[in-house]
Amino acid sequence: MERSRAERMISNAEGLDAIIILNDGSPFLDSTFWYLTELTGGSFEGSMAVVRKDGGLEVIVSALEEETASSGKGEIHVYHTRAERDNHLREALKGTSKVGFNTHCASYSMVDQVRRTVKGIKVKDASSAISSTTAVKDKKEIELIRKACWISSKVAKEIPDMLSDGVTEKEVASRMDARMMELGGTGNAFDTISAFGANSSKPHHSPTEYKLRKGDTALFDFGTKYERYCSDMTRTVFLSRPPEIMERAYETVLEAQTAGIEIYKDGAPAKDADLAAREIIDRTEFKGKFIHSFGHGIGMDVHQDISVSPRSEQILKEGNIVSAEPGIYIPGVGGIRIEDTCLITKDGCERLTDFDRRITFV
Amino acid sequence: MERSRAERMISNAEGLDAIIILNDGSPFLDSTFWYLTELTGGSFEGSMAVVRKDGGLEVIVSALEEETASSGKGEIHVYHTRAERDNHLREALKGTSKVGFNTHCASYSMVDQVRRTVKGIKVKDASSAISSTTAVKDKKEIELIRKACWISSKVAKEIPDMLSDGVTEKEVASRMDARMMELGGTGNAFDTISAFGANSSKPHHSPTEYKLRKGDTALFDFGTKYERYCSDMTRTVFLSRPPEIMERAYETVLEAQTAGIEIYKDGAPAKDADLAAREIIDRTEFKGKFIHSFGHGIGMDVHQDISVSPRSEQILKEGNIVSAEPGIYIPGVGGIRIEDTCLITKDGCERLTDFDRRITFV
Repeated sequence: MERSRAERMISNAEGLDAIIILNDGSPFLDSTFWYLTELTGGSFEGSMAVVRKDGGLEVIVSALEEETASSGKGEIHVYHTRAERDNHLREALKGTSKVGFNTHCASYSMVDQVRRTVKGIKVKDASSAISSTTAVKDKKEIELIRKACWISSKVAKEIPDMLSDGVTEKEVASRMDARMMELGGTGNAFDTISAFGANSSKPHHSPTEYKLRKGDTALFDFGTKYERYCSDMTRTVFLSRPPEIMERAYETVLEAQTAGIEIYKDGAPAKDADLAAREIIDRTEFKGKFIHSFGHGIGMDVHQDISVSPRSEQILKEGNIVSAEPGIYIPGVGGIRIEDTCLITKDGCERLTDFDRRITFV
Repeated sequence: MERSRAERMISNAEGLDAIIILNDGSPFLDSTFWYLTELTGGSFEGSMAVVRKDGGLEVIVSALEEETASSGKGEIHVYHTRAERDNHLREALKGTSKVGFNTHCASYSMVDQVRRTVKGIKVKDASSAISSTTAVKDKKEIELIRKACWISSKVAKEIPDMLSDGVTEKEVASRMDARMMELGGTGNAFDTISAFGANSSKPHHSPTEYKLRKGDTALFDFGTKYERYCSDMTRTVFLSRPPEIMERAYETVLEAQTAGIEIYKDGAPAKDADLAAREIIDRTEFKGKFIHSFGHGIGMDVHQDISVSPRSEQILKEGNIVSAEPGIYIPGVGGIRIEDTCLITKDGCERLTDFDRRITFV
């Protein structure tokens, strides 16, 4: 029988007696809670999940969400009051000493509460054990991300039809978001970036009332959620012909993306993909203009587990899902980014997103 | 001159030498960072904001977001490396001893990093000082929430037109989300709840493929963001006539909502609104079926600062924005909830959301 997610997680956590996942109020909710319980709904504020040393999963939820929780994995313990929650917590952590916390995804307050409630436990950082588990997607997860990628890819192909002289960044972003929902998305994976002209030189630009005009670069970075799982992609097009420098930048980014993706396979050092792409860019006039990392892991959070950067020490594994997103940013002129969501396989990688990556003049 | 947000915040934090706001990776971002800087965009992962005792604001951001940060409040300090960030942090906290953290909205890891980086500081909980500041909205904030409420209210009025025999919960939720975007929303405030028939008895139900049929209750809890600020509302309607018990439940919830809202005004104890509504419900056949609180504060997070519950000890203040959302839940049959977003005023309250609250048979 295949091991459960909880069993895989605790087996990655050498020396720990248990792992505890904590939800504070929204948005301070740890997606690992949904990963372990395999639930797709619920708000679960104030809920906790404990992975025991034997791989058992104890799930502590408020009475308000008992019914929702019952369709998921784990043994459910319902509380009506804070005192009841504390009792369930003490019971779940009975006999443990070294308890692993997901320190980047738990509020200081919740960790502190657990420490005060359960005497004698030691707070350990289990974030690597957790992320090395969640970084390797199982079949079910891959299918959900594949669906999210299918939805956003469909919208990527529609982008040229949404563009015309005078349309604003905000208008196009709204239309894209609405289309992802219509196609079955259950919410944006993150706020859509829609950036025209010089605005596209800011990697994290928020859409404004700026109106598209001829010669402008138009960059769109977007993704949807499908049953909690994210897609992430970027398409950059032009409204008629841009300044020549932008065309050269486009071709360079495309070449850099291809070079990085060539590296993607089980066993490859993540940094090699970044360095391969960066080398392509840095040997052109655009040296130094690729100002962020080549990629990151993707799952229930749009940035998780894996960093594909020059200093990353991570080794890619079959089942990892990572972005491939080189870019060139020329302040005051414009920026180019091309991004796919990629599944690492035994022999290479599969792009889960799909659109026409050739230079496009609308 | 009006005091800045930073000045108001530190003046609420007696005995503290500084307050520090910490962003980890998304979604572990503290909305207080955007509150203080008055920025609307940017991702600001790894950024920090320090409010000094004199009300000055120091903002520490990565080079990637320097340009975005420059349009906001505060003195910007840019870092390229972790070491640079640590230096800015030590500089910003120089001479402080008691440092207030937003303990529910900062990751354990970030608090721990600050503690290790800046020797000699004491970690204090500043969450009450912070939330008592952000709970009182200024004019600019009220206008943004008003706009968000206008958008979702428009969709609330369109709900009956979206319903017909056989439509699924997911289909209606997607249409509502798409409409909020079309009307200028910048993303959902939270995942839309669309619950038909017996599903409506689960307060946090996630939309499924369940098909609406005659006699069903149809409950929708939804909201949008507008420049980071949220709306929150719930409308419940019926597809033709429901079982009589649901009609009685509807009228009871409506009466309870009115009673609670009557209490809302500057100076009123928050719990009185909950108790007034609960009393109405508990003197009917539905005693004990109102299983959550009457309301919560709303701002950049959809649940923040204020709890309108039986045990709340908070006093409402002019400028607070709170939900008013009594409900009755009958397992296996259905649930009713009616919710508005309300602005507390000197003499009462203004409902910022608007829809036909009378019982509606589609």
